[in-house]
Amino acid sequence: MNLAQLREERPLVHHITNEVVMNFSANGLLAFGGSPVMAKEREEVEEIASVASALVLNIGTIRKEDIETMIKAGQAANKAGVPVLLDPVGAGATTFRKQAVQRIVQEVDVSVVKGNAGEIAALADIPLKVKGVDAEEEGDAEEIAVEAAKRIQTMVVVTGKRDVISNGEEFTTSSHGTPLLGSITGAGCLLGSLMAACMAIEKDKKEAALFALEFYNKAAERAEKKAVGPGTFIPHLLDELGKDDD
Amino acid sequence: MNLAQLREERPLVHHITNEVVMNFSANGLLAFGGSPVMAKEREEVEEIASVASALVLNIGTIRKEDIETMIKAGQAANKAGVPVLLDPVGAGATTFRKQAVQRIVQEVDVSVVKGNAGEIAALADIPLKVKGVDAEEEGDAEEIAVEAAKRIQTMVVVTGKRDVISNGEEFTTSSHGTPLLGSITGAGCLLGSLMAACMAIEKDKKEAALFALEFYNKAAERAEKKAVGPGTFIPHLLDELGKDDD
Amino acid sequence: MNLAQLREERPLVHHITNEVVMNFSANGLLAFGGSPVMAKEREEVEEIASVASALVLNIGTIRKEDIETMIKAGQAANKAGVPVLLDPVGAGATTFRKQAVQRIVQEVDVSVVKGNAGEIAALADIPLKVKGVDAEEEGDAEEIAVEAAKRIQTMVVVTGKRDVISNGEEFTTSSHGTPLLGSITGAGCLLGSLMAACMAIEKDKKEAALFALEFYNKAAERAEKKAVGPGTFIPHLLDELGKDDD
Repeated sequence: MNLAQLREERPLVHHITNEVVMNFSANGLLAFGGSPVMAKEREEVEEIASVASALVLNIGTIRKEDIETMIKAGQAANKAGVPVLLDPVGAGATTFRKQAVQRIVQEVDVSVVKGNAGEIAALADIPLKVKGVDAEEEGDAEEIAVEAAKRIQTMVVVTGKRDVISNGEEFTTSSHGTPLLGSITGAGCLLGSLMAACMAIEKDKKEAALFALEFYNKAAERAEKKAVGPGTFIPHLLDELGKDDD
Repeated sequence: MNLAQLREERPLVHHITNEVVMNFSANGLLAFGGSPVMAKEREEVEEIASVASALVLNIGTIRKEDIETMIKAGQAANKAGVPVLLDPVGAGATTFRKQAVQRIVQEVDVSVVKGNAGEIAALADIPLKVKGVDAEEEGDAEEIAVEAAKRIQTMVVVTGKRDVISNGEEFTTSSHGTPLLGSITGAGCLLGSLMAACMAIEKDKKEAALFALEFYNKAAERAEKKAVGPGTFIPHLLDELGKDDD
Repeated sequence: MNLAQLREERPLVHHITNEVVMNFSANGLLAFGGSPVMAKEREEVEEIASVASALVLNIGTIRKEDIETMIKAGQAANKAGVPVLLDPVGAGATTFRKQAVQRIVQEVDVSVVKGNAGEIAALADIPLKVKGVDAEEEGDAEEIAVEAAKRIQTMVVVTGKRDVISNGEEFTTSSHGTPLLGSITGAGCLLGSLMAACMAIEKDKKEAALFALEFYNKAAERAEKKAVGPGTFIPHLLDELGKDDD
């Protein structure tokens, strides 16, 4: 994964994402080196998704009518060979969300699904307790990642204290980061934006996802040292995302 | 009010709130010790509101179709015994807003209404001049709080230089805070989120509201000392919300 | 342009704007001295736009149904003599956007159109390459500003390394700012909010726009000196917007 190339090319990442994190995702992606666009009108998403370098579908504050919009954008991305990342935020919290993400993975060829254990388990119909949008960390993250990747037939990233990437056969783990990432909203959503940007540059999906994961978590570790609490952590994290790793 | 218990239980606060403040409210609530969820699709709000620990209805950027969604969520919360806080943002600014909040208080059993003098007066049909979403501070805050609580038949919090809590019979005032809270958007909305979280832990609504009010305003006083202006005030305020009150 | 008067009167600026930048625009305008309101329900926008001091129409995350809402608000502002600023975000990125802004300038008497070269060129049907919402800087900014102002028959501000203001006959340029403004989302959108606030106070549109432009860019230059990267630049920029221009 060539970060210099990414920062030179500034890949355009089309987001159809949740309103809570739009600003933070855009600023984080800009700092990292990508270029965000957040158009969501059904009439234009195909036009944008097909010229973008990557597409992020995040169901955080999804409405019923957005499902069709996401599918249209996803299919346009598929046709144009643009990688698609799905973030099934809170997929286990309601029947509506679970059905929405299951429909998306059926109708769109998703390149990577990224979520916490509860969200991934819900999407792949692996039983697990969920509290709101954040999963109780139960069950074995590795097992969930492998099994979900097998069932959905795409690469899966399960985030948590230990992050796991699996293609359904083997898995890779990574254990960087800081608990402060759990104290700010949209930390996981922004990670998805970085992964999508990396997939635009690096065709090996696993290498792209792992690079984004480790770069992001190490930036967070550096930001933590400069932060007093979650409030000051945010600007420092954005600063660090613009730097080089080590 | 037991803050340690709140931070242990991390109450899930379902927000149907305005898009301007979603990120700030989520980060502030996370820092304080709660867990935000911001789902707004009508098909799922009942499912979420009924398992949440509290529900916040904030009409800041409300659209016509959101009124029904808020009522559905509110009634589900009522059925499940989940406390409901209503923030009638800009209620006096338009006929549409006034009718929206009046319909909500008629159809939902709201636990607390929190707003500035102009908003509360509009909701309770007490005449007052209003400029945009921020009320001109005229009239007597205590009088408005008591009269509104009597008319709406629930607890009312009127925020301003002097904050007033009333149940329609008696009232309590509090005078902490800093003018910087008026220089950032969503300061009042975030206070509502903290009050809702406290109501999830403390059954005495007045004690819950008063605790949130004083904790928040004292955190703002500490943050003010570290801030140069409204921009640096924001991260410091979030940091302070995560600390203990001296 | 009298900044002290603006800060005394705190002009109410009605925004129908994009969800990515709502919070940042509101905080920036508050810091500068204005008062933001972001209502977007079609039933109430006429009531608000007609009592506001200025109206901002920003199509960043526009949906089809928002076009009608913006036109209604714009026409109400026109009837009440309230200045209207149009920010044609990403106008060249899709047919949908281009048609939306072209319809708005046909049906609303827009006081100022502010955008980058690509956006302005798209709106005025001057051919130019566009990448996503951010234009490749090609073509001559002065030429685009003058030609667009002539075609649209209103004042045009083309932002870029060199900012250009034109009424279709003559033009003024300004060259302050920092590349960091391009590393955060909504920098241009916030500039639009400040211009709108200034137009509420200063009837000479060119003087108002130029004042906002230079005040904003000089604040950004000062903030840059205090910032480590784009993350810390944001709070410092907001702080600086609240100060006096030396």
